[in-house]
Amino acid sequence: MASDMIINHQERAHALLKADADKILRLIKVQMDNLTMPQCPLYEEVLDTQMFGLSREIDFAVRLGLIEVSEGKVILAQLERELSILHEASLKK
Amino acid sequence: MASDMIINHQERAHALLKADADKILRLIKVQMDNLTMPQCPLYEEVLDTQMFGLSREIDFAVRLGLIEVSEGKVILAQLERELSILHEASLKK
Repeated sequence: MASDMIINHQERAHALLKADADKILRLIKVQMDNLTMPQCPLYEEVLDTQMFGLSREIDFAVRLGLIEVSEGKVILAQLERELSILHEASLKK
Repeated sequence: MASDMIINHQERAHALLKADADKILRLIKVQMDNLTMPQCPLYEEVLDTQMFGLSREIDFAVRLGLIEVSEGKVILAQLERELSILHEASLKK
């Protein structure tokens, strides 16, 4: 039971971080579809703020021993890849 | 053993958040002593960014069930109180 809870903390940390990364992707997608261009400083500021928030969460989870450094890097790299696909698609519109 | 590890995660989350709050306080103290005035936009931006980072960490710990919402509020409120004491002291110089 208690060791289930430990696994649960680790799995939950990973799931929360993935969900937060997905939230950033959705936010940026909505922003691209409706509001501003990628060239707009506001867009960059929102993205920077969100990426900073996520990287602080990841760093915190690593320091707690809930995820590996490499797992955190994978989450960030995947988000950056998806954002760059979005960005390129918006430039072709 | 396993339940020790759970308590350890909770205690460690709390200790990390307190340490991060203290780091912000030290950073702002150094900045006030050496670099810029509280009226400077750069000062406010650094402080805002740091407070945002800490609040994201606290929110993440709450969502993981590692700290209570009220504990997170106490950490932020204490930091704000200490910052405002620093700020007032710097105005009297």
